[in-house]
Amino acid sequence: MPEEFVVTPYQVTGEIDYDLLIQKFGTKKIDDGLLKRLGKYGPLHHMLRRGIFYSHRDLEWILNEYDKGHGFSLYTGRGPSGPIHLGHLMPWVFCKYLQDTFKAKLWFQLTDDEKFMFYDHLTLEETRKWGYDNALDIIALGFDPKLTNIFLDTEYIKTMYPTAIKAAKKINFSTIRAVFGFDNSNNIGSIFFTSIQTVPCFLESMEQKKKVACLIPCGIDQDPHFRITRDIAEGLGYYKPALIHAKLMPSLSGGEKMSTSSKADTTVFTTDDKKTVKKKIGNAFTGGRVSVEEQKKLGGNPDICSVHAYNTYFFEPDDEKLAKLYSDCRAGRIMCGECKQLLFEKVWKFLEEHQRRREKAEDVVEDFFVRD
Amino acid sequence: MPEEFVVTPYQVTGEIDYDLLIQKFGTKKIDDGLLKRLGKYGPLHHMLRRGIFYSHRDLEWILNEYDKGHGFSLYTGRGPSGPIHLGHLMPWVFCKYLQDTFKAKLWFQLTDDEKFMFYDHLTLEETRKWGYDNALDIIALGFDPKLTNIFLDTEYIKTMYPTAIKAAKKINFSTIRAVFGFDNSNNIGSIFFTSIQTVPCFLESMEQKKKVACLIPCGIDQDPHFRITRDIAEGLGYYKPALIHAKLMPSLSGGEKMSTSSKADTTVFTTDDKKTVKKKIGNAFTGGRVSVEEQKKLGGNPDICSVHAYNTYFFEPDDEKLAKLYSDCRAGRIMCGECKQLLFEKVWKFLEEHQRRREKAEDVVEDFFVRD
Repeated sequence: MPEEFVVTPYQVTGEIDYDLLIQKFGTKKIDDGLLKRLGKYGPLHHMLRRGIFYSHRDLEWILNEYDKGHGFSLYTGRGPSGPIHLGHLMPWVFCKYLQDTFKAKLWFQLTDDEKFMFYDHLTLEETRKWGYDNALDIIALGFDPKLTNIFLDTEYIKTMYPTAIKAAKKINFSTIRAVFGFDNSNNIGSIFFTSIQTVPCFLESMEQKKKVACLIPCGIDQDPHFRITRDIAEGLGYYKPALIHAKLMPSLSGGEKMSTSSKADTTVFTTDDKKTVKKKIGNAFTGGRVSVEEQKKLGGNPDICSVHAYNTYFFEPDDEKLAKLYSDCRAGRIMCGECKQLLFEKVWKFLEEHQRRREKAEDVVEDFFVRD
Repeated sequence: MPEEFVVTPYQVTGEIDYDLLIQKFGTKKIDDGLLKRLGKYGPLHHMLRRGIFYSHRDLEWILNEYDKGHGFSLYTGRGPSGPIHLGHLMPWVFCKYLQDTFKAKLWFQLTDDEKFMFYDHLTLEETRKWGYDNALDIIALGFDPKLTNIFLDTEYIKTMYPTAIKAAKKINFSTIRAVFGFDNSNNIGSIFFTSIQTVPCFLESMEQKKKVACLIPCGIDQDPHFRITRDIAEGLGYYKPALIHAKLMPSLSGGEKMSTSSKADTTVFTTDDKKTVKKKIGNAFTGGRVSVEEQKKLGGNPDICSVHAYNTYFFEPDDEKLAKLYSDCRAGRIMCGECKQLLFEKVWKFLEEHQRRREKAEDVVEDFFVRD
């Protein structure tokens, strides 16, 4: 029996059974047929091949729209509450793959309002500052400035507010209680917020003044917001947004979903220096045995190893190399130290380039931002 | 025993005991000492002399601020859900008296968002249209364009939203339930709305980038919004707003607070033509007897008469004339028909001029409106 787990945009606890989550949330698994179809638009991303983006809502319909020449927009977001770590980048890298493959316009929402309202320790000035900081990481990933609109909620609110209140009028507090687990002690800004998170699904339609489909690549924990959106979209005169859901990238400490606050010694931030990255990966939780001798004899367990998870999710896109690492580990042919060193080299190679691009991003921020 | 009554911004039922309301709400009565002090700044308005504006919060403090040369701003508003009637104008006329007397900057909020979210039958496009329509009535009253900023919430949201969410973070749903009587079936826009209604108290402070006092003239039914505002104002770095509360102008049908929707046959709209006004006043509920003979013998009852109330609240500013009307009625010297005719003449004189000014207002709307 899987232990009890909770997955909402505001709480992730317990060991997640991702297949059970599909049943609980009522989404669909991305099956072999759909993977095959996705492979026709370009090389299949390793996050699809490996079942990291594993669940969806209406993805076939989005592809039908695309096939008919209608196109679709992409929407993803970030709650700017602190620095960006590798776990944040993972779905955005996939989002870039979608943009490149389908030449889709991306609306990237920075929810400075949300993070301010949900976190006691953050001022609005701080979440805005983090918004601009985090945008550098987004831009550094190489999104096409012609196809990408990044915005802070507080800077795009005049555009969004009329649609947000039209959404809000259709959502009562009972729904919020049921979907997010809120109660009477929640502040009224947090209760209202899902209305704001609903709007970017419709921004392309609003801009083009016609119905345009929208696909949201996101962690499956964000699905509840968009279940509400899907319930009300047609009543507002828009298409229901489609979704493609990722599993949550484990942290290097072995837990589910990286946490900025609690695991600073194993969370690799995009601005960490080489020495820090090396140290953090060195501290990673692995599936190794108590001694080298034992590991050579019995082999390690890559299934519980955070280093292997990092390779799988992000840093070893080559399936053959990944399979070799796996079998070498199982067979006791590779020790954790070596494996960590290999991961470190790949991570640092990525980060060195990312940091260079991140610095250059400062010059082109204005090519990406939209404001009222 | 007074019958049960309920007064919130969203519900007014029962026969209101205004003195009991002061106790319930925890406000202060405007006593003779305060009236005397108010009289030093200029002729005392008849709505003060007659106890129509009868209750307050921190009005002495506002006058202290003024006496120190600090000045204060005024804030009032209108939920644009339909055409303006005489009951709406009453507190605005008083607001103009405050502006004239204290040379105070007025922030006039048109809550197009609120009316959309609270009324099923209204679209946002309609409430915006009513906002612009209603603004003509406001401007026609003669507010000083140099001292008056009128705004629609949806057109000033970028300025207001950051402060609104700072307010929202300090208000939980328990408070909203207790203050407004909401429950889980309320939509999340209506739950959030009081945050938006809080902001104009601080707009002058935001503009001047220093703490400026704010006085809100309003119907006492609006007090609950600002009780919440007062609880959180200092935590947001502003002064608590002060309030001066009016009793609710009775309708010509004799009930409390005019209603646009249900009493169209006795509600005098600002754009009604002469014949319609005459007919509506002719239909008014009075304190007259069943026959002229009986009334001549026993006298009428002006205390329950809506025509007398109209004179008292609005149309007979001369205390002596009002007293004479009262005693003539009591003594059976004046019949209801004559009294209605006298009221009609005063109302029509006012409306004829108002309609002329209302038409001219269309040319100067832009002198009054502020937008993001």
